[in-house]
Amino acid sequence: MSRWEPNARGRLEQAALELYGEHGYEQTAAAQIAARAGVTERTFFRHFADKREVLFGGAQQLEQAFVDALAATPATAAPIDAMASALESVAALFADRHAFARQRQAVIAASGELRERELHKLASLVAASTVTLRERGVSEPAASLTAEAGLAVFRVGFERWVAGDADRPLADHLRESLAALKAALAGE
Amino acid sequence: MSRWEPNARGRLEQAALELYGEHGYEQTAAAQIAARAGVTERTFFRHFADKREVLFGGAQQLEQAFVDALAATPATAAPIDAMASALESVAALFADRHAFARQRQAVIAASGELRERELHKLASLVAASTVTLRERGVSEPAASLTAEAGLAVFRVGFERWVAGDADRPLADHLRESLAALKAALAGE
Repeated sequence: MSRWEPNARGRLEQAALELYGEHGYEQTAAAQIAARAGVTERTFFRHFADKREVLFGGAQQLEQAFVDALAATPATAAPIDAMASALESVAALFADRHAFARQRQAVIAASGELRERELHKLASLVAASTVTLRERGVSEPAASLTAEAGLAVFRVGFERWVAGDADRPLADHLRESLAALKAALAGE
Repeated sequence: MSRWEPNARGRLEQAALELYGEHGYEQTAAAQIAARAGVTERTFFRHFADKREVLFGGAQQLEQAFVDALAATPATAAPIDAMASALESVAALFADRHAFARQRQAVIAASGELRERELHKLASLVAASTVTLRERGVSEPAASLTAEAGLAVFRVGFERWVAGDADRPLADHLRESLAALKAALAGE
C-alpha cells in the first residue's frame, strides 16, 4: 500500500458512512473502514481518534468557529444580530458537505448513543455561545435566551437543509429560519 | 415494618436525593433508598421502576401535561401565545417542588449519564410540542421554531427558578424569560 494517500481523510469519512449505513455503527470497526478506504488502520488512527470521531470531529471545529465569529461581531451589534452573523459565518463550513451531512444524519438517527452525543454537542454549543455573549456584556437572561434562539435556528435550518435540495445553501435556510422565529415571537 | 406507609413516594424521593447527593448516583442502590425511607425494597419498586425513575418519572407526566395544555388552547391563538399558555399551565405542577428540583438539578449536573438523559427528555418535549403545533395547523418551520422557543424559555426560566428564591413561583420566571426572548428577537 502506498504511503502517499491523496485525500485519505475524505475517503475514510466516505467509507465510514457507507459502512455505518450498511451494517450499523455498532457493527463497524476501524479496521473495516480503513480497508474500504484502501488505507492502513494506522492511517485511520492518524486522522481519527476512534470511529465516533468520524461523525463528531467537526463538532469541536464548529463550536470554535461559532464562538470566534460571535466574538468578532462589532460590540454595538444587537445580540441577535451578532448571532445572525455567526450563523452566516459557520454556514460557509458546510459548503460541499450536503451529501456527507445527509448520510451522517441518517447514521445518527439510527443510534440512541449517537443521538445523545449529538444533543450533548449542541448543548455544549449553547453553553459556549452563552458565555461569549456574556463576555460581550449581554446580561441574563438575554444571553442564555439569545444563545438558545440562535441554536434553535441552527437546528431547524440545518435539518431543512439536510432534507432539502443540495443546491440551496445552508445560509439560506438559516436566514429563513431566523426570520420565521422572529415572526413567531412577534405573534404572527 | 408497617404496611401502612403514609407518603411513601415522597419519602422515597427525598431519601433518594439525599443518598445521590451524599454518595453519588452510581453508588446508590434501590435497597439503600428504601432503608433510608424506612420502607421495604418492594415498596420502592411499587413506586419506581428503577433508581433513575426517581429523577425522571416526572418528565413523562410533564410532557403529557404540556402537550395537553398546548392542544387545549383556542385554535385562534397565535402559536407563541398557545406556548405561553402551556408554559403557564405546567408551571403549576412545580408548586412546592422547589427544594426537590434544586436537589435533583445538583444530582443531574454531577453525572454525564444523567445530563444526557435530561437532554434526551427535553428533546422529546420539543418533538412532541412540534407535532402538537402542526396538528393545530401551524406550518413549518414555524411549528418547529415555536416549539424550540417555548422549550428554550422553559429551560432558562426553570434554571433561574431553581437557582433563585423558593418564594418566587416558576410561572413568574417563565413569563420573564418569554418577554426577554421576545425582546432579544426584536433586536432590543
